[in-house]
Amino acid sequence: MTGAMVPHLVSRWPAWLFWWRVACTPGASLQHRTWVEVSRRPMWGSPWRVVGTGSLVRRGSSSTSSRAPEVVLTHERYPVQRLPFSVVSEEDRAAFERMVPGRVIMDPEELEASNVDWLRSMRGCSKVLLRPRTSEEVSHILRYCHERNLAVNTQGGNTGMVGGSVPVFDEIILSTALMNQVISFHDMSGTLVCQAGCVLEELSRHVEERGFVMPLDLGAKGTCHIGGNLATNAGGLRFLRYGSLRGTVLGLEAVLADGTVLNCLMSLRKDNTGYDLKQLFIGSEGTLGVITAVSILCPPKPRAVNVAFLGCPGFAEVLQTFHTCRGMLGEILSAFEFMDATCMQLVGRHLHLASPVQESPFYVLVETSGSRAEHDAEKLSGFLEQLLGSGLVTDGTLATDQRKIKALWALRERITEALSRDGYVYKYDISLPVERLYDLVPDLRARLGPRAKHVVGYGHLGDGNLHLNVTAEAFSAALLGELEPYVYEWTAGQRGSVSAEHGVGFKKRDVLGYSKPPEALHLMRQLKTLLDPKGILNPYKTLPAQA
Amino acid sequence: MTGAMVPHLVSRWPAWLFWWRVACTPGASLQHRTWVEVSRRPMWGSPWRVVGTGSLVRRGSSSTSSRAPEVVLTHERYPVQRLPFSVVSEEDRAAFERMVPGRVIMDPEELEASNVDWLRSMRGCSKVLLRPRTSEEVSHILRYCHERNLAVNTQGGNTGMVGGSVPVFDEIILSTALMNQVISFHDMSGTLVCQAGCVLEELSRHVEERGFVMPLDLGAKGTCHIGGNLATNAGGLRFLRYGSLRGTVLGLEAVLADGTVLNCLMSLRKDNTGYDLKQLFIGSEGTLGVITAVSILCPPKPRAVNVAFLGCPGFAEVLQTFHTCRGMLGEILSAFEFMDATCMQLVGRHLHLASPVQESPFYVLVETSGSRAEHDAEKLSGFLEQLLGSGLVTDGTLATDQRKIKALWALRERITEALSRDGYVYKYDISLPVERLYDLVPDLRARLGPRAKHVVGYGHLGDGNLHLNVTAEAFSAALLGELEPYVYEWTAGQRGSVSAEHGVGFKKRDVLGYSKPPEALHLMRQLKTLLDPKGILNPYKTLPAQA
Repeated sequence: MTGAMVPHLVSRWPAWLFWWRVACTPGASLQHRTWVEVSRRPMWGSPWRVVGTGSLVRRGSSSTSSRAPEVVLTHERYPVQRLPFSVVSEEDRAAFERMVPGRVIMDPEELEASNVDWLRSMRGCSKVLLRPRTSEEVSHILRYCHERNLAVNTQGGNTGMVGGSVPVFDEIILSTALMNQVISFHDMSGTLVCQAGCVLEELSRHVEERGFVMPLDLGAKGTCHIGGNLATNAGGLRFLRYGSLRGTVLGLEAVLADGTVLNCLMSLRKDNTGYDLKQLFIGSEGTLGVITAVSILCPPKPRAVNVAFLGCPGFAEVLQTFHTCRGMLGEILSAFEFMDATCMQLVGRHLHLASPVQESPFYVLVETSGSRAEHDAEKLSGFLEQLLGSGLVTDGTLATDQRKIKALWALRERITEALSRDGYVYKYDISLPVERLYDLVPDLRARLGPRAKHVVGYGHLGDGNLHLNVTAEAFSAALLGELEPYVYEWTAGQRGSVSAEHGVGFKKRDVLGYSKPPEALHLMRQLKTLLDPKGILNPYKTLPAQA
Repeated sequence: MTGAMVPHLVSRWPAWLFWWRVACTPGASLQHRTWVEVSRRPMWGSPWRVVGTGSLVRRGSSSTSSRAPEVVLTHERYPVQRLPFSVVSEEDRAAFERMVPGRVIMDPEELEASNVDWLRSMRGCSKVLLRPRTSEEVSHILRYCHERNLAVNTQGGNTGMVGGSVPVFDEIILSTALMNQVISFHDMSGTLVCQAGCVLEELSRHVEERGFVMPLDLGAKGTCHIGGNLATNAGGLRFLRYGSLRGTVLGLEAVLADGTVLNCLMSLRKDNTGYDLKQLFIGSEGTLGVITAVSILCPPKPRAVNVAFLGCPGFAEVLQTFHTCRGMLGEILSAFEFMDATCMQLVGRHLHLASPVQESPFYVLVETSGSRAEHDAEKLSGFLEQLLGSGLVTDGTLATDQRKIKALWALRERITEALSRDGYVYKYDISLPVERLYDLVPDLRARLGPRAKHVVGYGHLGDGNLHLNVTAEAFSAALLGELEPYVYEWTAGQRGSVSAEHGVGFKKRDVLGYSKPPEALHLMRQLKTLLDPKGILNPYKTLPAQA
């Protein structure tokens, strides 16, 4: 999910970035370094736009949609056949109206935003969107759909990258948007319990006011729903520090395909009473059940946050910087992100963000979060001194106040947006052994030559997660043929994962075999059949199409 | 699993403990405090004993076994009926001999140690123990057993607390003891890949030599197998810092009931390629498959570890100390354990360990692990000053060198052992909202009166995990009737868990309903049927007995 959408930041920030000298670093040997000078630059305008629903809806690249061509229907672009589900009838609509009165959306313009994914690469043709407020309403809807053999596509913030959140044909869209209530927050333990439709950023605000932080953060936070985060097992920017949702989610409530409400909404850190059923729903992209509520453990809010942005002469130095960083920063390290020079050029060209450091082949963003500002500053200063002394880093800047930190983060978080302005984007999100993380990028540049506009690599180095993106003037089947299955085969050759954090959705369901053995795919199918025997939940997603 | 067995520590330590003044604490206001004076005391002797297998086997309370009465056969003590599995025949034994030549154990004396659990509360009557070395051998064994309808009990270190690791009737014991090879360790990422039968303490040593630590630690570390740790979703002493195995385990290999080898042995921090099948096997106690190999993420080894042992005047002060601790120690806090005065008395009486602080109603052990010794000491000193100044703590001692740290930890880790020497022990391991964590202890003392010898409470306060233990001269059905279902009903009333970390095994399978709704139990049964249709894997465990 990371890097998906960040324009929400823009509306909350002053419309400029500025760069600064390192002022707070106590290390003497840093004082004489030349750090990049401050300058003010305009940022890209607001991404808000009015859509057909009559409400303000934030979408990543939507402000460019007037220029964008109409999105082709998914079943016209991709070879996919509609499965024999029922078609929603007038009678069905009346039944839904009784279940969620006034919250059955049928207006085509209103449906548009939910039929198209934010990358504008897929379009469904759903005729009905339902907005339940409670898990009981979800239960009634699913029980009815199960009996009637109607397919259902659950949708949170619709910020996914793999087409998992939009219908492929005419599936009913079940929106979690009105299930947005915080149920409880426990100050002693930091346990948040809330409905699935709460927006991540709003939850962050809620817990931060109480001295805690959400254990996950991602570019799409202003739009994505916590239920969608769980359903896609979102990774994001705090993964390195707080780990996977599989550890931080304490419980959840899910409604099964037949309408059964499964209450696993425990709020305990430890619970070994049998199989951990919640794990079935985390990362299963709405194909095994609809997540309706979440219990999640929030860590205490760090008292001090620092961000260093560094220029590195090569990828070997990026790796060595990471190794040094882990040793010297230890428990206060909270993010280690990298981007290549092309990313920086595109962020500059399309979003008018300037680099805070001298031009370098690679850039690294290191974030620390700790409980004592002066200790963290001391550790960071020692670390930076060591880096500069050893030549691992050629230039760098350090930010300690929140506005500057956010400005540095924007360089990393807004790469996706810059790419989407560069042309058609072929996106790959792979996990690899960290020492091989960048190898595929120069390899692909050589392979594709001028057929690609740009080939870039960036991502969560600390997690071994590469976002590999190729841009071109327009979609081309020939270029796609050069990329696939080549990228997947290369990844499989390294025992990597063809989907690190973005999930499978519709777009990657047929490449799972590169990362999963046949026995695993077979067991996945068995689980799907067990939990959703009619296959009504998010069909055409996650599982490979049957041969 | 925590607190299960610790005598292995004894054999590696000097046979005395000593107490010391706080010498390294820079906080001036601490200097004039009276800390408990050093004295040398003998510790309890070696727990090593020779058992029938002809090899040295470490077992927790086994040195007392000569005094202990013969363990009653499980099916004679508990109301349980043998299911209609086949009985191992001469032909079966010959077949196993072909599969694992020389590693089919049938000698009754050798089988004794594996038929009885370490608490000496259950006894199976298995006639065959198999010692495969590879997952292929496990696959051959299970395929055969599946065809022949033979029941199988997988056994790691046999350190479980709920009778999950020993046969109930004549199930074949499948030991992981010879599957003890480290497969790889990756220095950059800290990823360890090993076979399931590796002993936790040996793995710890392996990764510590390389600058990392295992993300889990528990009292039974000298005996327990990593495969058993996963199968029981062990919590333990580092849970507060590194979280659940559900987050730190990157992959595993499991052999299914029909012999299928399921390879999910990824070594990537992020992998969202479909359902996370490994989660099915973590915590399912060998009932869904046999874990044969593990891939686990090890955090960097902290450079500085400190332990403070404190006396608190009441449980409210313990809670307030925890709250203060989280705020002031933040990211370096790695454990927060508590024990009551009775625990300390029993540790003193039965193990001759003396309290390092003045007698108090409660004791707290706080551990910090960080990357910079002087920073951590400064944080701890500020924290202790605040505690003493506010009256939350009445006495305390601080340890910074490893021997002293281990001595302090022994007071907490060896409570289980002290209890087992106090008489028959009724053991409960529950999760509760932290502010209610101790309420049940005085409640039970009043309820049981002189019928109980001792009622004690201790555990992982930071995780909301109470170990509640009641001792009596001997087992008594009447006393059990006073305890159950009362303890479970009380726990359910607080929305707690009736098994925080010890699991379900044989002993708790019929109390799951206190923590799991019927829909969850139904889905658990469906999963069992899907993965093990004949029910040959660890029967009579984890799932409630069918009505």
